Amino acid sequence: MSLKNDLLLKALKGEEMSRPPVWMMRQAGRYLPDYIKLRNKYDFFTRVQTPELACEITLHPVDQVGVDAAIIFSDILVVPQAMGMTVLMEEGKGPLLPEVVKNQADIDALITDGVEENLSYVTAALSLTKKELNDRVPLIGFAGAPFTLLCYMVEGKGSKTFDKAKQFCFTQPALAHSLLQKITDVTITYLKAQIKAGADVVQVFDSWSGMLSPADFRTYAQPYLTQIAQAVSPYAPVILFPKGSWYALPDLSKSGAAGIGIDWTITPALARQMAGSNITLQGNFDPCKLLTSPAQIRKDVHDMIDAFGVNRYIANLGHGIMPNVPVDHARAFVDAVKEYTIK
Amino acid sequence: MSLKNDLLLKALKGEEMSRPPVWMMRQAGRYLPDYIKLRNKYDFFTRVQTPELACEITLHPVDQVGVDAAIIFSDILVVPQAMGMTVLMEEGKGPLLPEVVKNQADIDALITDGVEENLSYVTAALSLTKKELNDRVPLIGFAGAPFTLLCYMVEGKGSKTFDKAKQFCFTQPALAHSLLQKITDVTITYLKAQIKAGADVVQVFDSWSGMLSPADFRTYAQPYLTQIAQAVSPYAPVILFPKGSWYALPDLSKSGAAGIGIDWTITPALARQMAGSNITLQGNFDPCKLLTSPAQIRKDVHDMIDAFGVNRYIANLGHGIMPNVPVDHARAFVDAVKEYTIK
Repeated sequence: MSLKNDLLLKALKGEEMSRPPVWMMRQAGRYLPDYIKLRNKYDFFTRVQTPELACEITLHPVDQVGVDAAIIFSDILVVPQAMGMTVLMEEGKGPLLPEVVKNQADIDALITDGVEENLSYVTAALSLTKKELNDRVPLIGFAGAPFTLLCYMVEGKGSKTFDKAKQFCFTQPALAHSLLQKITDVTITYLKAQIKAGADVVQVFDSWSGMLSPADFRTYAQPYLTQIAQAVSPYAPVILFPKGSWYALPDLSKSGAAGIGIDWTITPALARQMAGSNITLQGNFDPCKLLTSPAQIRKDVHDMIDAFGVNRYIANLGHGIMPNVPVDHARAFVDAVKEYTIK
Repeated sequence: MSLKNDLLLKALKGEEMSRPPVWMMRQAGRYLPDYIKLRNKYDFFTRVQTPELACEITLHPVDQVGVDAAIIFSDILVVPQAMGMTVLMEEGKGPLLPEVVKNQADIDALITDGVEENLSYVTAALSLTKKELNDRVPLIGFAGAPFTLLCYMVEGKGSKTFDKAKQFCFTQPALAHSLLQKITDVTITYLKAQIKAGADVVQVFDSWSGMLSPADFRTYAQPYLTQIAQAVSPYAPVILFPKGSWYALPDLSKSGAAGIGIDWTITPALARQMAGSNITLQGNFDPCKLLTSPAQIRKDVHDMIDAFGVNRYIANLGHGIMPNVPVDHARAFVDAVKEYTIK
């Protein structure tokens, strides 16, 4: 079957476009009243692990906001969980991993076999969503990047600095690399399974890579992002989103990924200059700008597309949409991209 | 009287150096056992508002770690407080401003006259410290940048996104500019008073400017940083530290400031290329690297100075030192700079 709306895939292939595709990170989330209803009824892991619920949540923004792609409702921490770690998720409080990785024995104890089976609820959710989407728009699968997962697995929770995780890397680099490789291997298997189950595109979120210097990014993040991009790209286009790591654009543009996400701290012109012309850029609307007004959003979105151009570009935010964004502002963002015409 | 160690001033003037000066942001702080002792005895504002205590705390790292400059122990939120806002500081919890700025009436109610008198405890602390330093090293005064103070005055507390503060700017730009100008005027008066009281150099901390896009930085941060740099520079060298705003280096190098602080997400080479050769760069050691070992710190510091060069450079961290850094690691950082010799 062919997709009725394949703008995302065309943008990732570098085809000639009349307008860019648009979706929003965290588009299936707390700014949507229907999501809040389900959140009040089912706890986090019930929503993530019940394919019918994950599917319903994934479809909300497609039906209600009109995005050009669906992204499966899930969480990056399902991978550490599938590798045997306890992950607690308190609503509004962020994740907690009570038993962190400290030494080689902890790394050896991590499960790498059978991760596909452990995460079969994700692939089931993808298959169901793919069917329910009925080829209206492409379906995006995702995973956390190895460095970002290491941050949680070593630090045990969110942090302003992730200093324990970075200390682990800087003082025990061999251990860090063995953990990063283990996560990478699992992630490659997991992303391939997601594609097999129906994901048309996959995105890798390196949410904390921007806490690394360019040299440390090249040591602890980039090799694993590149391994994933190269192993998975033969099956589906890969988008890498190393938040804050603008400095890595030249290197990552040669990683084999089809797209790179960027945040709003870099101008479209400089990002394009650094990334070259053979990769698709995704981003980079400041999510706080969704708090302005539909008219202002429309103007700012058109300025953003003017700056990026319509080819090799996916309109998106530079970070996840916030819970306090009015739904009609999210819709204004999407509509502004859809109504854009080349000048 | 002339300073026995004037390396910081020489570096800011662009003089020929045999090694760079070194100090550390938050060097008078929680990693030092003597600071903890005073913290357990006196609450935050007692420490800040008692010149003898502020002086004692300021001298700790000069005596115990051997830095090439003292920076007065104080807080950026003393300015909103002097402007009439309530600022609560719960130990280990961050600041709380229970009554935030919401509208023109709130801005009109802010006090701009008599700020020098309201902050006379800071100038008294500077005078006392200057005397106690006995010209061993220069004394640095400081203030928060207008955008960063707006963040706290509008948001009321720390935040991952400062979305309320940014929403205020983006939806009510005229109000935002009137607030920013008011803070700027007060800050200029305050910094001049600090210099009169004994500060040899002043630093302006724009801790949250990195949350702005380059265009928004140019609107809400840069004009006020430039006003401050131009108004204060005739009296003493000004260092601007817009954390995360690497993109602003070309513009800020023309602001009239003598120095710009940078964090570790930009390489020394690129920072120098963007800033040009007529301004002093300060930074940019990843504070997490102080958690490694004295030997590793020494190597990394020497690599950093190799990359920056010894002229027009001040060795520092890229952000404040963390409470969990062993004192001998902080000392290793400082010693590594002091023992550096040009290759």
